[in-house]
Amino acid sequence: MSKPAGRTILASTIAKQYIDEITSQVKALDFKPKLVGFLANDDPAAQMYANWTGKTCESLGFTYDLITVDKNDLESALINANSNDEVNGIMVYFPVFGDNQDQYLQQLISPEKDVEGLNFLYYHNLYHNVRFLDPPTNEQKSILPCTPLAMVKILEYLGVYNKHLHYGNRLYGKKVLVVNRSEIVGRPLAALLANDGATVYSVDIHNIQQFTRGDDLLMQRHKVVDLDASEYSLEKITPQCDVIITGVPSDSYKFPSELVSNGAVVINFASAKNFNDDIKQKAGLYVPSIGKVTISMLLRNLLRLIDNKKIRTQS
Amino acid sequence: MSKPAGRTILASTIAKQYIDEITSQVKALDFKPKLVGFLANDDPAAQMYANWTGKTCESLGFTYDLITVDKNDLESALINANSNDEVNGIMVYFPVFGDNQDQYLQQLISPEKDVEGLNFLYYHNLYHNVRFLDPPTNEQKSILPCTPLAMVKILEYLGVYNKHLHYGNRLYGKKVLVVNRSEIVGRPLAALLANDGATVYSVDIHNIQQFTRGDDLLMQRHKVVDLDASEYSLEKITPQCDVIITGVPSDSYKFPSELVSNGAVVINFASAKNFNDDIKQKAGLYVPSIGKVTISMLLRNLLRLIDNKKIRTQS
Repeated sequence: MSKPAGRTILASTIAKQYIDEITSQVKALDFKPKLVGFLANDDPAAQMYANWTGKTCESLGFTYDLITVDKNDLESALINANSNDEVNGIMVYFPVFGDNQDQYLQQLISPEKDVEGLNFLYYHNLYHNVRFLDPPTNEQKSILPCTPLAMVKILEYLGVYNKHLHYGNRLYGKKVLVVNRSEIVGRPLAALLANDGATVYSVDIHNIQQFTRGDDLLMQRHKVVDLDASEYSLEKITPQCDVIITGVPSDSYKFPSELVSNGAVVINFASAKNFNDDIKQKAGLYVPSIGKVTISMLLRNLLRLIDNKKIRTQS
Repeated sequence: MSKPAGRTILASTIAKQYIDEITSQVKALDFKPKLVGFLANDDPAAQMYANWTGKTCESLGFTYDLITVDKNDLESALINANSNDEVNGIMVYFPVFGDNQDQYLQQLISPEKDVEGLNFLYYHNLYHNVRFLDPPTNEQKSILPCTPLAMVKILEYLGVYNKHLHYGNRLYGKKVLVVNRSEIVGRPLAALLANDGATVYSVDIHNIQQFTRGDDLLMQRHKVVDLDASEYSLEKITPQCDVIITGVPSDSYKFPSELVSNGAVVINFASAKNFNDDIKQKAGLYVPSIGKVTISMLLRNLLRLIDNKKIRTQS
């Protein structure tokens, strides 16, 4: 193979500016912010992720408490944490029950402590392009789900967002493929990018949907259409895309590199490796994983929750 | 018509950083650099352009002498200016004879004073991606023709060049249409962009050519192929292009806006207006004229010629 024309960009490089911002903002506080993580399963991967979260928090000046609880005690533990003034942020390592009860537990976390931005309130705001929690004052900024937010920051870093376009339209003209339509990441991500002006092709095992904001820039919400499978296949769409984003949680899945156009931006947010190494021969910029940016966004959200609380208690 | 999604960017905005750089570099010199322009025709447009060049030069701290000569005296006037140590840069307002004799006169200007970068030496270096005049020392930088260089600076400013890609490959994956294949601008521009990694479709009234660097990044020169007109028409190529550049010197010519893909970068370098206003409904970023960037590049070249002279006389 010849020398790749493109470059691999590591998440740690992209995260650096956010880590620096977070560190100085934490130093400026008159207390040490506390994040509490709840672990209620035996998954070694969750345990590892929890340990890594803890190390990152401590190194940046946060307090991190990992609380291991029985599944059946998680509900009351969350209620206690919601009302505990010393706790600034709460997260749960899912799956717990592995069914709809997990969603109930997730929504039980107070929006005021939801560092992951997974509360329906925040999703609603994301889908409707609502940026503040307190209209018309507009002082308290809404929280965005960590992974979609990390993706936006990565695309900004890589220059896919064009800063010369109007704010809120900086992806105008960009075609983005997102392979994943989960409620946690894929669907909100597609909406977020469409709200910023992109044409997004959202792929799951059933079909391909197109997310756009339509022609009306004043519309505060994206539009979704199911694409006709006979006309719009992955084979036809992929070569036209400026950005390919994958998040398929399977070690056996590999995205077909041969479909990717030379110079495309390629980002994988799954913990599994969704691309073979031959992608480096095609991609302009390749980001093989995004975890370090995601955790920066989680801690950024935590600081924003603290800001919002300050504004609420002052007014 | 609805509110345009994109933005119009003026050349004056893009030129500002170069104007600032030039101003401070001129201040740092221990003499006032002198540019001499020769006018040997009765074209009122050339006279206007000459006056404008003069005003710009004076306002930035240069001395500008406009010398009006008879066509038949231009040759000896250029020879005198070449050997005059007080003259740092020379330019001629063409056309003079309007035939091949103009090229002879152009090439008569010493490369050491050729602020427009039109000497064959500089074109050769551009076509072969040679960046220095004095290998292997590589201290004296080669000059680039003003208008193609201005276009590169504009594309850098607009974020079309991606700074995360390796230097010399920052247009990797970009498709660029250039409508103009003159020896002065269109062809060198296509080569320059191809040398930086783009796929360039170069259009003139006869055919469409594709300029690329090919797959081999080590190749120090672009590749040109004539495209088969039945397969590659303007109608088929334009919608795929990220950047549309026009330079058609005719008031009646208008590029078909309907072919331009939403969000494309659109730049006109002709003094004529090559786009109707409806382009603003399609373009992401639209630069309607580039003159102010071009003259900045001319003065930047003048400073570079002075630097090169200093290096030569020191060694």
